[in-house]
Amino acid sequence: MQVTIVKIGGNILDHGENLESFLKDFSAIDTPKILIHGGGKIATELGHRLNIDPNIVDGRRITDKPTLDLVTMVYAGLINKQVVASLQAKGCNAIGLTGADANLILAEKRPVKDIDYGYVGDVKAVNGLLIANLLADGITPVFAPITHDLKGNLLNTNADTMAGEVAKSLINQFEVSLLYCFEKKGVLLDINNENSAINQLEKGEFERLKQQGVISTGMIPKLSNAFAALEHGVNRVIIMHAYNLTKMHVDKEIGTMLKL
Amino acid sequence: MQVTIVKIGGNILDHGENLESFLKDFSAIDTPKILIHGGGKIATELGHRLNIDPNIVDGRRITDKPTLDLVTMVYAGLINKQVVASLQAKGCNAIGLTGADANLILAEKRPVKDIDYGYVGDVKAVNGLLIANLLADGITPVFAPITHDLKGNLLNTNADTMAGEVAKSLINQFEVSLLYCFEKKGVLLDINNENSAINQLEKGEFERLKQQGVISTGMIPKLSNAFAALEHGVNRVIIMHAYNLTKMHVDKEIGTMLKL
Repeated sequence: MQVTIVKIGGNILDHGENLESFLKDFSAIDTPKILIHGGGKIATELGHRLNIDPNIVDGRRITDKPTLDLVTMVYAGLINKQVVASLQAKGCNAIGLTGADANLILAEKRPVKDIDYGYVGDVKAVNGLLIANLLADGITPVFAPITHDLKGNLLNTNADTMAGEVAKSLINQFEVSLLYCFEKKGVLLDINNENSAINQLEKGEFERLKQQGVISTGMIPKLSNAFAALEHGVNRVIIMHAYNLTKMHVDKEIGTMLKL
Repeated sequence: MQVTIVKIGGNILDHGENLESFLKDFSAIDTPKILIHGGGKIATELGHRLNIDPNIVDGRRITDKPTLDLVTMVYAGLINKQVVASLQAKGCNAIGLTGADANLILAEKRPVKDIDYGYVGDVKAVNGLLIANLLADGITPVFAPITHDLKGNLLNTNADTMAGEVAKSLINQFEVSLLYCFEKKGVLLDINNENSAINQLEKGEFERLKQQGVISTGMIPKLSNAFAALEHGVNRVIIMHAYNLTKMHVDKEIGTMLKL
């Protein structure tokens, strides 16, 4: 049995038309599927209107309590439920979830070393069995990037990491494809050239390109998550443009396929 | 098999300590259970900060698009997920839901007669079978008062009505108790006297008290919903104070029990 896990980034979420088009393509995927969405600019904009300014310490973004409440409202409330309602209208039986719901994704507050990130969660455990039950019932989980610590705290969690962890939790029951969709055609060799996406990236090559500074800093955590998922048994990991989702089954050369 | 459905009103949600105490009592209920929560003042306060003022036409509150987004954020995001995380910490395996999630509660936009209420939904159908499946898996659904129309629109929905409709959807599989919890001890014969709650209210007596103006206007829709649930086969409907939830199993004389 196959499962397709799609991570969609903020840039697509920020543009209503692109999002609608993406959700149409997503709902057409004919395997059981899971969507994991990030945040986008809506939270930042709403934060400005509420005078909740980004709390940045030593260049790192901190999730203080007002920011946590803000992202809980926007990610788990507004974005998640709008996506669910839109998918439902397209015939996809979506259910919107955070990690707190049914204790699906347990996290722990990131330990304080040099810096206290605040209400930021690192994933500890995913209940893949319950996710598999939902999929078996024809239900499509849609995750907002919020988890909890089972002590009553919600935690802001990186959506790329969440996607990787959800994928890893399903490898015993499924052949797992993990698609990181964003606004580029894949891993670019030249960040200024949209058409410099490579078809395939091996782990060793990634390390070399990283050292040479060819891969943009923003891509490095995403790729590290992606390779970690592959190393833990996820069958297929692709970094790709969101608008290529429909072409997945006709064209093998979409985006950047990662290889160990 | 019994199920207990608890509706909790805004007043309890607005006070952190009361809410924690209530959630502790709720998590101790030893039958399968469902929580349905309202909104509270948080949405109004956040609306003020965002310059989203209540849109009132002819004395009726209208849910325009900014208000819909606001309540989606606050009810389905902030309140719902905080309640879920708190219940999880208390050993109750809660899952936060709106009617859009898994198409659990389908509604239709309220038809325009004298007035266009905007994005307000009247419940058309509840998927009681899926709710029963969740309960059978030991999961406690926590509903925010938002539904959808299967056309991509989220709809603001009265939480009292939602509670009644959810209760009605389960009568074939369960013995259903529906508890409307709020900040009064029950149906008061004198709105200025906290201790004037009556133990029992029959439908005929309700109609008489309503005509005599004894029952406060705010209580009338709640009681109409409650009697409708009873008429449709819900086994037990009680209007009660939230802090009496723990006394349910020891004291039969809690709140106002409705009778046909």
